[in-house]
Amino acid sequence: MLIQPGELLSKIDSPDDLRKLNQSQLVQLSQELRQFIIDNVSIYGGHFGASLGVVELTTALHYVFNTPEDQVIWDVGHQAYGHKILTGRKEKFHTNRVYGGMSGFPKRKESEYDAFGVGHSSTSISAALGMAMASNLKGEFDKQHIAVIGDGAMTGGMAFEGMNHAGASDANMIIILNDNCMSIDPNVGALKEYLTDITTSHTYNRMRDDVWKLLGKVSGFGKSAQEVVGKLENSIKSFLLKQSNLFESLNLRYFGPVDGHDVNHLVHVLRDLKDIPGPKVLHCVTTKGKGFGPAEKDQTKWHAPGKFDKITGEIQKKPVEKPSAPKYQEVFGHTIVELAEQNDKIVGVTPAMPSGSSLNIMMKAMPDRAFDVGIAEQHAVTFSAGLATQGLIPFCNIYSTFMQRGYDQVIHDVCIQDLPVNFFLDRAGFAGADGPTHHGNYDIAFMRCIPNMIVAAPMNESELRNMMYTSQLPREGKAFTIRYPRGKGVMPEWRTPMEAMEIGTGRKVRDGKDIAILSIGHIGNYALEAAEKLSEEGVEAGVFDMRFVKPLDEKMLHEVFSQYKKVITTEDGCLMGGFGSAILEFMAENDYSSQVKRLGIPDRVVEHGEQHELHAECNFDPEGIFTTALQMVEHSLHAKL
Amino acid sequence: MLIQPGELLSKIDSPDDLRKLNQSQLVQLSQELRQFIIDNVSIYGGHFGASLGVVELTTALHYVFNTPEDQVIWDVGHQAYGHKILTGRKEKFHTNRVYGGMSGFPKRKESEYDAFGVGHSSTSISAALGMAMASNLKGEFDKQHIAVIGDGAMTGGMAFEGMNHAGASDANMIIILNDNCMSIDPNVGALKEYLTDITTSHTYNRMRDDVWKLLGKVSGFGKSAQEVVGKLENSIKSFLLKQSNLFESLNLRYFGPVDGHDVNHLVHVLRDLKDIPGPKVLHCVTTKGKGFGPAEKDQTKWHAPGKFDKITGEIQKKPVEKPSAPKYQEVFGHTIVELAEQNDKIVGVTPAMPSGSSLNIMMKAMPDRAFDVGIAEQHAVTFSAGLATQGLIPFCNIYSTFMQRGYDQVIHDVCIQDLPVNFFLDRAGFAGADGPTHHGNYDIAFMRCIPNMIVAAPMNESELRNMMYTSQLPREGKAFTIRYPRGKGVMPEWRTPMEAMEIGTGRKVRDGKDIAILSIGHIGNYALEAAEKLSEEGVEAGVFDMRFVKPLDEKMLHEVFSQYKKVITTEDGCLMGGFGSAILEFMAENDYSSQVKRLGIPDRVVEHGEQHELHAECNFDPEGIFTTALQMVEHSLHAKL
Repeated sequence: MLIQPGELLSKIDSPDDLRKLNQSQLVQLSQELRQFIIDNVSIYGGHFGASLGVVELTTALHYVFNTPEDQVIWDVGHQAYGHKILTGRKEKFHTNRVYGGMSGFPKRKESEYDAFGVGHSSTSISAALGMAMASNLKGEFDKQHIAVIGDGAMTGGMAFEGMNHAGASDANMIIILNDNCMSIDPNVGALKEYLTDITTSHTYNRMRDDVWKLLGKVSGFGKSAQEVVGKLENSIKSFLLKQSNLFESLNLRYFGPVDGHDVNHLVHVLRDLKDIPGPKVLHCVTTKGKGFGPAEKDQTKWHAPGKFDKITGEIQKKPVEKPSAPKYQEVFGHTIVELAEQNDKIVGVTPAMPSGSSLNIMMKAMPDRAFDVGIAEQHAVTFSAGLATQGLIPFCNIYSTFMQRGYDQVIHDVCIQDLPVNFFLDRAGFAGADGPTHHGNYDIAFMRCIPNMIVAAPMNESELRNMMYTSQLPREGKAFTIRYPRGKGVMPEWRTPMEAMEIGTGRKVRDGKDIAILSIGHIGNYALEAAEKLSEEGVEAGVFDMRFVKPLDEKMLHEVFSQYKKVITTEDGCLMGGFGSAILEFMAENDYSSQVKRLGIPDRVVEHGEQHELHAECNFDPEGIFTTALQMVEHSLHAKL
Repeated sequence: MLIQPGELLSKIDSPDDLRKLNQSQLVQLSQELRQFIIDNVSIYGGHFGASLGVVELTTALHYVFNTPEDQVIWDVGHQAYGHKILTGRKEKFHTNRVYGGMSGFPKRKESEYDAFGVGHSSTSISAALGMAMASNLKGEFDKQHIAVIGDGAMTGGMAFEGMNHAGASDANMIIILNDNCMSIDPNVGALKEYLTDITTSHTYNRMRDDVWKLLGKVSGFGKSAQEVVGKLENSIKSFLLKQSNLFESLNLRYFGPVDGHDVNHLVHVLRDLKDIPGPKVLHCVTTKGKGFGPAEKDQTKWHAPGKFDKITGEIQKKPVEKPSAPKYQEVFGHTIVELAEQNDKIVGVTPAMPSGSSLNIMMKAMPDRAFDVGIAEQHAVTFSAGLATQGLIPFCNIYSTFMQRGYDQVIHDVCIQDLPVNFFLDRAGFAGADGPTHHGNYDIAFMRCIPNMIVAAPMNESELRNMMYTSQLPREGKAFTIRYPRGKGVMPEWRTPMEAMEIGTGRKVRDGKDIAILSIGHIGNYALEAAEKLSEEGVEAGVFDMRFVKPLDEKMLHEVFSQYKKVITTEDGCLMGGFGSAILEFMAENDYSSQVKRLGIPDRVVEHGEQHELHAECNFDPEGIFTTALQMVEHSLHAKL
């Protein structure tokens, strides 16, 4: 079903059309744009609050700037739905985040208006600065470069690195701080407090105004007072101008705060800023979910609510199969509390994903022992290392894809020092609708190559619980990585008693004789399904849930390779350097020569879609495993004939 | 030769001894400590300037605080020589950075006074905060946690992440900003300017003092003036206290700047700070190389000068074998200029390593086109991606070990978008005396698993030049990683004419029949040496310089595996997931079953030492390759008999 855009919006196929409007029409257009987003997301789902919050800003930016010549970069990209709709994609908008459809994030391949692909936070300043410096080198001095970045993303260290460089440059760029006090969850940290300070009662601006006014008045008194105050005034003025603001400390001219929902004022301000050369910050205060009551009230819930009734604000529940298995996330969230109640050394750490990871359950139950450190993966890892040096047991939960941000810290601060930190890599494998920026495809490869690192993945809820239990038992050194996918497990009755697991041991889940399937993690369920189907064809496949990528269960592997001449490895991770490669390394070290086919994620960028769609695309769904096994066995039958 | 410490220093075997001294003796002790460092480094080499700059600070810290109960973390660790000497290691000090000897950096295994291992920059705040929060949880509220961090390290994003979290916490910690305006090279960026501003003529403190004094005077005037000024005073006071400073913006109480070479004043200030709860910053101004004239004058040269004459300040030149091969670093530095003179799209990027990488040659020759972005690897990568979107050709030079810091950005901002950025991973493989924190052991594994990535390594100067030449030819997408080791190549006459190299092609460097040795990078020279020696034993080894880890030269590999039943792979990178594993993957995909032994860096932390010592330890020096090959061939001869 195509949603009808409003009267003005229906005529806008590109920003050129927008720029033909009279400025007085922008309020109406913004309203139509907001409604179009509400109408679409209520039916098709997607991210919601962030885009509603920047409707006016989006309209004003494309109205004032000459996009795509001028370049706008939308940090993180949750906020870019309005941008997509105004830049020729309103007809495609209902395919948002659907397999084969439009990406939920700005993406260079999708449109020339998407100046830079985004997804992870805090990249926009660096990218915009690169573009701006390129413009300088090419002599394109009029070209504008705009990074729109949330206050949450601003806490990511790389934003600071970018500002430090920008402030020392003559880059022609505007950093628009979209300040809504939120990441997906409410923001944390000192920066948030600071921004709140300068936007609320004692605003920076009012302060500055007050001082100046008062100085004016004081100057009315006697001469000696005037002299004294003259000196005072000068020093205060220069002080206020130069050093009074975090951003100005970094030599970025600071403007604002301005009301991010006043489109006409935004147009006015942006026009002024356009003429001011050099790097500058516009502080823009917005409300996440603006214009949709329920979303303004519960911003975390409405970050990406799924489908909902746009009149009542009721969010559709997904139809429940009974009895339903829980999400791995829920298992993590409840189990860490269960363990922490028994073991007072356990502490939880999340970089700004309390609700996504379910660490919020622990944050509520034992607030002193669970830390949301903000969008700051590097810090999260080394902070955990610091905790571990004092004998605490950190459970540091980071999405697989975001762990890429803390990689050096895992090597340098945890593993080289051999500190027993536990890492929980959530959303390992395909993220689903978020697409390639959020897929957790590389973690097995990049974690297993680090010394002093254990890498495991559970096949089901019970294994996750046992791994968690095992990870908090005393051990000498070694980091422990446990990766699991986004979404549901397989055990409706998941609150199984926990028991220790011997590190580096796998589990035979099915006997066989014709071929062995070695799996890691949740994908083992596919292997089992394939084996059942193979059995119907007369092929008996042994299935081995290896559980540990590192250390491998060498005893089990010796049995497998002694017994089976055909072996399949399967994983929801990259084939290059992944679990299958670890098996090949074992074979080479032990001079085994069975035929091995590795199934997993191929060496290319896999786009967005439902997880099962992507598994099928990559040929490691049950059907893919089945077909591969059959071919291998039949091939060998043929060879025998 | 053991260096004799001075009269006071000779009696200090631990900080307990130090704390028994009368405060009036600290000036003399500092002088002796400085002299001991000069005496030692002049004879044995090592880092120099940074430690000289913190002699007084080191003395004061151990005098005031109850180390090791109170915990001091020395960011980066270049600066910790004084710390090591005062904490029981002066007798070991002459083994500094020597194979089997003392580490050049603080290291937990080495001493309980080394609260946290360091090496890469900007980690100290996160680690100290973790420790401080652990102390809070354990009820150890008197325990002090001190991070000593340079102004260069402060530009690393993770320091900002740590401050953002610290400022919102009640952690009992002191961040000592050791401000000497230097990283290894002079610092860059807006933060540096800011710190200079607040420490020079119009210092922050003087400003604050002036305002307060003036307000005091003004208050002496008539009543209405008093009223006005009363209001003014309050608002200014709260303003100055709350928002007037970058650090206070982040809710960190700021103290300073203080003279970091006045040991008595430091003792006084640190004693005061000890009693102030919560997170705070002490801004301490020091001079790198303090007390040794030549080092104060040329701080980059004297960062780690090697051995020198402590009287004349003459740095010993290493004996030159004639004709000498250049360092790979020099080849990079001169060749990029050579290429950039022909191709105006080439730009250079370095995160704070202009002299180490030799990009300083380009920075001098074409300052507009070579960027030192500060200690900011994440930014360096995405900034390069931004440049690439505009059609420029970035040569982003990052030490292999520091690339771990920009890993997410390589995946997310470069490769998912398929942008043609060139990465030069300097100091790949063992770093040498810097040890495990600086070894570049993992890059082959963590780079090759990324889609849209080419990974190559030159065997000699000519190959590096040809790879550089190739990397700047127009290509559709794909990032290009070229890794090379620290130190010398093999070609005294290295300025060879450059030519394009077909991407994904190797080079047979020696014919053979009994065994094939597949090598990547400089280590191919070892393979060749081993092959010559094998020939003397009657074993003919084919040697293949694969040049590309990705894409592999499949044509050549088909030839190799068709012809050879015995194959050795050798690389100066981790065995898990590395080059050898890529070869195993090729074999599995093509059903080859030759016997393969992989040589490379094993799955453990390898300590510091000369590169050749570490290669030998890991058995991939010429002797190791020779022995492995001989065993494989002899084993098969035995099997035949």
